Amino acid sequence: MEMKIGVIKGDGIGPEIVDEAMKVLDRVAEVYGHSLSYTQLLMGGASIDVNGVPLTDETLAAAKESDAVLMGSIGGDAKTSPWYKLEPSKRPEAGLLSLRKGLNLFANLRPAVLYSELKGACPLKEEIAEKGFDMMIMRELTGGLYFGKRSTEKENGMLVARDELTYSEEEIRRIAKRGFDIAMKRRKKVTSVDKANVLDSSRLWRKVVEEVAEDYPEVKLEHMLVDNCAMQLVKDPAQFDVILTENMFGDILSDEASMVTGSIGMLASASLNETKFGLYEPSGGSAPDIAGKGIANPIATILSAAMMLRYSFDLDREADAIENAVERVLQDGYRTVDIMSEGMTQIGTKEMGDRICSYI
Amino acid sequence: MEMKIGVIKGDGIGPEIVDEAMKVLDRVAEVYGHSLSYTQLLMGGASIDVNGVPLTDETLAAAKESDAVLMGSIGGDAKTSPWYKLEPSKRPEAGLLSLRKGLNLFANLRPAVLYSELKGACPLKEEIAEKGFDMMIMRELTGGLYFGKRSTEKENGMLVARDELTYSEEEIRRIAKRGFDIAMKRRKKVTSVDKANVLDSSRLWRKVVEEVAEDYPEVKLEHMLVDNCAMQLVKDPAQFDVILTENMFGDILSDEASMVTGSIGMLASASLNETKFGLYEPSGGSAPDIAGKGIANPIATILSAAMMLRYSFDLDREADAIENAVERVLQDGYRTVDIMSEGMTQIGTKEMGDRICSYI
Ligand SMILES: CC(C)[C@H](C(=O)O)[C@@H](O)C(=O)O
Ligand SMILES: CC(C)[C@H](C(=O)O)[C@@H](O)C(=O)O
Repeated sequence: MEMKIGVIKGDGIGPEIVDEAMKVLDRVAEVYGHSLSYTQLLMGGASIDVNGVPLTDETLAAAKESDAVLMGSIGGDAKTSPWYKLEPSKRPEAGLLSLRKGLNLFANLRPAVLYSELKGACPLKEEIAEKGFDMMIMRELTGGLYFGKRSTEKENGMLVARDELTYSEEEIRRIAKRGFDIAMKRRKKVTSVDKANVLDSSRLWRKVVEEVAEDYPEVKLEHMLVDNCAMQLVKDPAQFDVILTENMFGDILSDEASMVTGSIGMLASASLNETKFGLYEPSGGSAPDIAGKGIANPIATILSAAMMLRYSFDLDREADAIENAVERVLQDGYRTVDIMSEGMTQIGTKEMGDRICSYI
Repeated sequence: MEMKIGVIKGDGIGPEIVDEAMKVLDRVAEVYGHSLSYTQLLMGGASIDVNGVPLTDETLAAAKESDAVLMGSIGGDAKTSPWYKLEPSKRPEAGLLSLRKGLNLFANLRPAVLYSELKGACPLKEEIAEKGFDMMIMRELTGGLYFGKRSTEKENGMLVARDELTYSEEEIRRIAKRGFDIAMKRRKKVTSVDKANVLDSSRLWRKVVEEVAEDYPEVKLEHMLVDNCAMQLVKDPAQFDVILTENMFGDILSDEASMVTGSIGMLASASLNETKFGLYEPSGGSAPDIAGKGIANPIATILSAAMMLRYSFDLDREADAIENAVERVLQDGYRTVDIMSEGMTQIGTKEMGDRICSYI
């Protein structure tokens, strides 16, 4: 297969971790006989430095031309980075939001998995951690508070700010379908999270999710209020299979869930549109404090590349090969510093990439 | 001192736990020479059963007449309760929202404390739990998405739902001041939580909080994004003193924090307006599954009564007496079932109230 991949290395540790993912993809291409081409694209801080804006029309157009985009991480340290002196619409994360909208990436998939080799890193107590967990958070990514009308205006001499949370039936239906489709390939349970005791958008969410559920009689659907879900993720994460939720709740809950695994450096993500196109990136941030030191964990980006093979190219066997290689390197006892524990062997970014390649 | 207290026993375990808090208040009045009068008020499910609506004008007026209101818990089991077949504006929680707005209770204080006697209940691993934590979540309670305009309408043949998140400078300033005032009596640190990289309301929030902070040079202010805060509560709860945040974020984070303590049955709350008036209630829900069994934990309600003495009546000594009595009963090894652990003595709701009284 021929694959045209757009590559956004991004800021902070982005370039280092993306390099390892490309190394792994190259290895897969070699072993399984595929042909890969990469187009480097500038985004976020890296684009501000060169173009003055976080996302240019050219980058967006080039991203659309590719079959899939692999991304490092966007943004810097809000406390020290010069980008954060710019007005909000010019900052790195503005580029991220425009990219999501511009590519219509409405379905954000974030797996939160407790790897059995990494249970020691889990912040939960043993009783809970030993059960393990493996959930997929399906976050709506192009609607809600993130993309509603907003304004800050003087009213009666006082500033008043407004942000609108909007969802249409259609926006809810398409993400719900994706959620149920994924659940069918997993343990067939969907937990739809909303705040239907307060919000109109949540009541519509619940109604449409129930309609979609009718087409998936094998999937068990439950509704959970967002405040309760924030509790349950800590109390009993093993109860979840697919969590389906709107944009802002998904932002909060997916970060909470990734912290509950204790190893964000391991967590991939995919953002998909209606076609096979997708944007793949690690769940963690740009970690400017450790950038350039060669110690960042590339596994989340490597597993994001595996998701790319699975979702954009239907190459399940190749995706499995990467995931298995990661498992084996963990079993061999190799760890980057963020997941290091007693008795294990600490290695750097490049060596981790090499060792994963060696098992493919 | 003469205290006129409105009492909303509420639904589920509400009546049982409020009875114990009244018993403790009576004991305090006797020992310290105060005079108490109670007016029973109907709210929530209990009011729907009698009046057809969750909050009547009479209840609201009577609440306003009192110096403070002590409340049990509102609502039932959404899966089985007949109240949840009603339209949203007639359900128990609608009464709660109208009561908050009607009494202008803009400042919701929710302590999340890990009691040293109850560390075993904490879902976090020992390394984190042993540090302990004691934070106060200050949630704005009468603004934001909860009280903005909302609508569900057909647009081009498709339902579209909207909820508006609005904050004015004034709304932010008054809650921020309360947050800093409380921090001055504690460890002098405020973590203001927002989503300023996306929302206009959060950018205004941050600006006004910074203005207010200038009047409190002794207090250390930090800003944290809501997704990061959801992670930090699990990773390192000891870092927090006062968390200051808007209504919806506060709903999610305060529930997460209360689960992180592992003992919701211990957590009080206060909702205050501009005057000394306040509404005091346990953080947990109405737990319909255990209602009427005499096993519910009354401590959260008893500690809410202590907050009432402290915030509405400036009776710090009396509030301390209740809090110390609770500590001593825990030290003696008495536990209700929800906080029971090996080697402790399990007791019921009433006996817990009696034992706390015996130390006052
Ligand atoms: C950077 C920020 C705008 C973004 C979001 O809130 O979506 C980030 O937190 C994420 O989850 O990808
Ligand atoms: C019942 C519900 C409307 C309420 C809220 O969201 O405020 C509850 O969750 C709370 O925190 O008091």
